Amino acid sequence: LKLSQIANLLGCSCPGGGEEFLITRIASPDNADEHAITFLSDPKHLAAVAGCRSLAVIVKKGTAITGKLLLEVADPYVGYALVAQEFESREFEFSAPAPCCIDPSARVASTVRCGPYSVIGPDCIIGEATTIGACCVLERGVKIGAGCRIDSGVVIRRHCSLGNKVIVEAGAIIGSEGFGNAFDGERHHRIPSFGNVAVHDEAWIGAHTTIDRAAFGSTVIGTGVRLDNLIHIAHNVAIGDHCAMAAQVGISGSTTLGKRVMVGGQAGFVGHIHIGDNAFIGAKAGISKSVAPGAKMTGYPAREFMKMRRIEAAQLSLPELLKEVKHLRAEVDSLRNRLDEKSVDKQ
Amino acid sequence: LKLSQIANLLGCSCPGGGEEFLITRIASPDNADEHAITFLSDPKHLAAVAGCRSLAVIVKKGTAITGKLLLEVADPYVGYALVAQEFESREFEFSAPAPCCIDPSARVASTVRCGPYSVIGPDCIIGEATTIGACCVLERGVKIGAGCRIDSGVVIRRHCSLGNKVIVEAGAIIGSEGFGNAFDGERHHRIPSFGNVAVHDEAWIGAHTTIDRAAFGSTVIGTGVRLDNLIHIAHNVAIGDHCAMAAQVGISGSTTLGKRVMVGGQAGFVGHIHIGDNAFIGAKAGISKSVAPGAKMTGYPAREFMKMRRIEAAQLSLPELLKEVKHLRAEVDSLRNRLDEKSVDKQ
Amino acid sequence: LKLSQIANLLGCSCPGGGEEFLITRIASPDNADEHAITFLSDPKHLAAVAGCRSLAVIVKKGTAITGKLLLEVADPYVGYALVAQEFESREFEFSAPAPCCIDPSARVASTVRCGPYSVIGPDCIIGEATTIGACCVLERGVKIGAGCRIDSGVVIRRHCSLGNKVIVEAGAIIGSEGFGNAFDGERHHRIPSFGNVAVHDEAWIGAHTTIDRAAFGSTVIGTGVRLDNLIHIAHNVAIGDHCAMAAQVGISGSTTLGKRVMVGGQAGFVGHIHIGDNAFIGAKAGISKSVAPGAKMTGYPAREFMKMRRIEAAQLSLPELLKEVKHLRAEVDSLRNRLDEKSVDKQ
Repeated sequence: LKLSQIANLLGCSCPGGGEEFLITRIASPDNADEHAITFLSDPKHLAAVAGCRSLAVIVKKGTAITGKLLLEVADPYVGYALVAQEFESREFEFSAPAPCCIDPSARVASTVRCGPYSVIGPDCIIGEATTIGACCVLERGVKIGAGCRIDSGVVIRRHCSLGNKVIVEAGAIIGSEGFGNAFDGERHHRIPSFGNVAVHDEAWIGAHTTIDRAAFGSTVIGTGVRLDNLIHIAHNVAIGDHCAMAAQVGISGSTTLGKRVMVGGQAGFVGHIHIGDNAFIGAKAGISKSVAPGAKMTGYPAREFMKMRRIEAAQLSLPELLKEVKHLRAEVDSLRNRLDEKSVDKQ
Repeated sequence: LKLSQIANLLGCSCPGGGEEFLITRIASPDNADEHAITFLSDPKHLAAVAGCRSLAVIVKKGTAITGKLLLEVADPYVGYALVAQEFESREFEFSAPAPCCIDPSARVASTVRCGPYSVIGPDCIIGEATTIGACCVLERGVKIGAGCRIDSGVVIRRHCSLGNKVIVEAGAIIGSEGFGNAFDGERHHRIPSFGNVAVHDEAWIGAHTTIDRAAFGSTVIGTGVRLDNLIHIAHNVAIGDHCAMAAQVGISGSTTLGKRVMVGGQAGFVGHIHIGDNAFIGAKAGISKSVAPGAKMTGYPAREFMKMRRIEAAQLSLPELLKEVKHLRAEVDSLRNRLDEKSVDKQ
Repeated sequence: LKLSQIANLLGCSCPGGGEEFLITRIASPDNADEHAITFLSDPKHLAAVAGCRSLAVIVKKGTAITGKLLLEVADPYVGYALVAQEFESREFEFSAPAPCCIDPSARVASTVRCGPYSVIGPDCIIGEATTIGACCVLERGVKIGAGCRIDSGVVIRRHCSLGNKVIVEAGAIIGSEGFGNAFDGERHHRIPSFGNVAVHDEAWIGAHTTIDRAAFGSTVIGTGVRLDNLIHIAHNVAIGDHCAMAAQVGISGSTTLGKRVMVGGQAGFVGHIHIGDNAFIGAKAGISKSVAPGAKMTGYPAREFMKMRRIEAAQLSLPELLKEVKHLRAEVDSLRNRLDEKSVDKQ
């Protein structure tokens, strides 16, 4: 790509004379060469960027670095993401033709690529330019939009649907059964799930994440949602648009999240609560009650962020506090005795 | 199904005149139509059920709803489970014949259905009416009973055994190696596992749950046990009959659970302890000691449930407590000084 | 094996007259027969070992048990590991020839065994005597050394590399994408990963563990590292040689571990910190800051081990402490009043 094309992509002006300069890849400063473009998203890396071999740098508007071709943008980290997507390999991982098992009733667009030993079941519909890895299983009636990327080893169970440009990473499972049991005091009676999972456009599902189908209706993953690896989403959960959650989070049945909720790794949510828009949930937090929009919660049990920080700080003094209260008790008792003696003296 | 057949299934009487009424599916009140049966397991949904389009409702004995055909049972949630199982699809997800790889030495019952690209290794034995999804791997010597459901992408490693009517959800791994290492101060020496995993009748193993084989003997999953998704069961663990645990629980080596233990999500157990019958372990609890039968434990480190609730409530006051103790210290010092002065005055 | 051969393997002397005694397997005392060898690693099992049917026992130097053929070693648990490895089955789980899909450009050593429905992509290189299970996917450019064991259902994504004698258990995913997102206040822009994962010699990766590829460069798993099941290793993490971590641990992006770090189950680490050599991290710990070499940390938030134990003990007294401070407050107020009254009296 010419630098002018990248400037165009970022919606910024191209440094004079650099329009024709050829960019062959994006790199971090330490492994950049002359024709790699790099980026400065945190000022603490300024020296590393200034000293690196790369000529072209994506920077925050107003940044000056001598001897570099600067693309000045509002948010260089977003700029990095956009340019990196441009340089991403679109090469298919597997050679064609691959042995796979496509039911005659499935409607698979002609531009779909499918790796070896994948299975596309009856009545599936797969949109244009979607790629499917190896050893994937799409059960009966699965619908996948256009431009999706389904990595190897993914299982999408019956009647689940994915929008357009969805990414499902290796080993993710979409549409496993909800964990529903009616306990009669002696044993559990299994409650089958009649619903499905609906994943909306541009969502990204991490490796080995499992999403259970709804009892009735749909478990919903909103537009642009980011789920990291090994996350558990239970039945009838609804995740609002553009939420992001780090690895190993668990969300229990029927809990709903608003939009743009951010969740740290290993956090857990009980069922049947609601998390408001733009809430922030700390790593390892245990959320047992609904959370207001914009609230920041952390800890187990979770509390408002600054309150929790004060509690945690106070805990450090707890062993000394115990001793101090014992001393106070002794001193108060002794003061009372002295005061009692005085009273006796007086009488 | 006729309503009288459902009444029969539930062991209750059929409302007069409704015997021949046709029920085509089970549904929640909000998506029910006239021929769907619904249920009322929580009185707070009474208005929704009373106003829904469904005619037939499973209710608790003694409940009255005008204009509905009521099936009165002791526990309507159990009733829901039983009827839902009846309406569950038994359709196989894949079209036959599927390419799969069955070792000639395997004994596979004639009513077994197997999805594409599944592997049944040497000396396996598979019972009647068991279904196996796509891309499953059953290694050498695996024994599976009758009426089991093995979903796609499951791996059952060598010589593990499953009873009858076991469900193994997509991607579960049964018989991975125990995590045994002898550390010599410099490096770890791997300890191979010679045992297997034995899963008893009617157990239900969730998606991507992993169960390690025993060092010697068997890791045991009892009858009717429910394991949700992404659970880790280490080597030589024994889970008693009818235990249930939510997603992402981890149980370390050689720990044993009695019967009907309930475990919340993301709880963790150290190795070599015993959890008594009917114990209840809260979500995210960290269990480092054996638990008595019937005990309710929660927290990290885990404590008896009500004690933990009191500690958690007290923690909220901890920052103020620190300040109050400082004030008390100052006041006690000042009182002592005043008392000392008085004593001096007197002398 | 003759007992003398085992003594040779352990580097100890063979009990006189037992040189030719045939050992057919290794077993725990309770399921040992005459020709099984067993071991005594914990003195509390002495009676069980003394009374078991096995003749040969691996013991700590200086241990005496009447009527047994004793192999005396410095560390009998390490001895157990070494002998167990010798008796481990090397039988391949699947019958040959298996249908699999090997790209013509892949260079696969002649002694490699590969299970059914596995995929070896373009430009892969697989070393001598490596075994690959069923339904495995090795994408383009994957390099695997000699003597590795890749169990069934493993996905190794493009350009990742494994050293020699690496074990990857069933369902593990190596080289999933790093979870990188640039959030612009409204939506997330995905940051593709250009790096890979490098797993060094003799590492052992557990079932369903996921290891993300680096943004640039390599995510590194050091020599001899042990990762249990369902662990999440984020992009650009580096795990030093001979570290071991129990199941369900999560490590966030760019965090590095020194050598021989031990991590308990379900612990979590924030990104961009360093854990020093020989550190010990307790189960369920939440590590949010760098840890010094040799330090022992536990709890959430994590603190030095003994400090945390004292805090936890003090927490038990917290509800009573609150009451005691209230009493002290009342008593101090009353003492002050009495003192004030006295002062008034005097005036």
